[in-house]
Amino acid sequence: MPHWKTTLTYDGTPYNGWQIQPNLPTIQGTFAQAIQRITGESVLPQGSGRTDTGVHALGQVATFTLTVPIPATNLHRALNRALPSSIRVLSVEPVPEEFHARHSVRRKTYEYRILPNDQICSPMLAPFVWASRLPLDLANLQRAATHVLGTHDFTSFAACDPDLTTRLKMQSDSPSADIAMIPTDNTRTIYHSTWHQQDDLFIYRVTGSGFLHHMVRNLVGTFVDPTFHPDEIPTILAARNRSAAGPTAPARGLFLVEVEY
Amino acid sequence: MPHWKTTLTYDGTPYNGWQIQPNLPTIQGTFAQAIQRITGESVLPQGSGRTDTGVHALGQVATFTLTVPIPATNLHRALNRALPSSIRVLSVEPVPEEFHARHSVRRKTYEYRILPNDQICSPMLAPFVWASRLPLDLANLQRAATHVLGTHDFTSFAACDPDLTTRLKMQSDSPSADIAMIPTDNTRTIYHSTWHQQDDLFIYRVTGSGFLHHMVRNLVGTFVDPTFHPDEIPTILAARNRSAAGPTAPARGLFLVEVEY
Repeated sequence: MPHWKTTLTYDGTPYNGWQIQPNLPTIQGTFAQAIQRITGESVLPQGSGRTDTGVHALGQVATFTLTVPIPATNLHRALNRALPSSIRVLSVEPVPEEFHARHSVRRKTYEYRILPNDQICSPMLAPFVWASRLPLDLANLQRAATHVLGTHDFTSFAACDPDLTTRLKMQSDSPSADIAMIPTDNTRTIYHSTWHQQDDLFIYRVTGSGFLHHMVRNLVGTFVDPTFHPDEIPTILAARNRSAAGPTAPARGLFLVEVEY
Repeated sequence: MPHWKTTLTYDGTPYNGWQIQPNLPTIQGTFAQAIQRITGESVLPQGSGRTDTGVHALGQVATFTLTVPIPATNLHRALNRALPSSIRVLSVEPVPEEFHARHSVRRKTYEYRILPNDQICSPMLAPFVWASRLPLDLANLQRAATHVLGTHDFTSFAACDPDLTTRLKMQSDSPSADIAMIPTDNTRTIYHSTWHQQDDLFIYRVTGSGFLHHMVRNLVGTFVDPTFHPDEIPTILAARNRSAAGPTAPARGLFLVEVEY
């Protein structure tokens, strides 16, 4: 049976995140509907991970298996005809059955975009940046960002998510697995962590082995928080406590840029 | 009483056009609500002209008169706090009472953006370009565009709008004026009419003394129509008949760029 790897870009604004939910527009649900309309087959595409409500993607990866044979170019074209313009399929390729969108991930890259200083934000950019009143200093941001490079326990930057266990269960490949039995490992490796300026925008780009829920938004919310000194990041990491870090930056500035396998 | 000139930019996607309508989101209505929330005064801001549903603005101009005195910078800041992020006020300045947003217009500039050849359109750009299956040729487009320079009767490119008379009456400064008595003059002067390419986008930029309803979209729809030769534009103009021209290009690609006084 043909196993397909697709790369997607989407505007997360009109969706309640990636993960399918009853009676709510989601990217996974909308994608499943498009596949069904084309092939008549009811499949649930597996993403490289969830993105939250309002988070965007330039290169989300999703896989699914069909029983009907269909040429890749036809499937690609048909998907983009069937999907709304807020979701586009960038590529479609057949992959071996062992390839798993989530388990096979080696590295992920995110970007976060901020328009600082209470500047007037173009309505065409507004859904894609955090228009913040904060003043930002590129050197300070870069200094803070460097402290997360390498392998750390990122518990201080992970969401205290009351229904995370439930959601993990829903998403788990073996539905009978008792997630509560598995010790949580919040250790991740960060390979790249930099800030740069592009016109008026401050952009954070981070590549890692994986990311905890809200991790990029919590890192950004801490980096830009004027109550922290850039060199306090190691202390915040060592605390292994969410309350040691800054607030969560808004979803609209976050893009899943690339997933590497 | 202070008379204010404001310059606005907006994403037209979530609005039923500029002109206020009962029970529908409009830019004029949303702007009036923001002014009322700040000042307590119920005024109807006068635009330089209407924009249709889904049409965007980078520099729409609107005027209104308040009884309360308020510093321009405070009014500017308060308006952007009160408005949704899809509408931004770019400037606020006091103008003489005689200044009229519509009657005082000297020149208007529009831009129209097309992504041709059935290319994959980024979801972040989709509300702001016409993603068309048509192939486009820059030299041909430019040749056609040159033919509309100067003063012409643009009846062939004006909307055959059944309720235009009603709408003109609604918008008229003297509500008792019988528009049907005024002979329609579809003559306009075009000062600038060019196509250029920016990355994958084809962009048409046109400046004129004024524009009829749907005129830019009908010009674009005709320029890109492969059934017309670029040198047929003079014949289409001479026909003074809407059916001589091509179809209306979609609203989403159109921007009101600048209004000059």
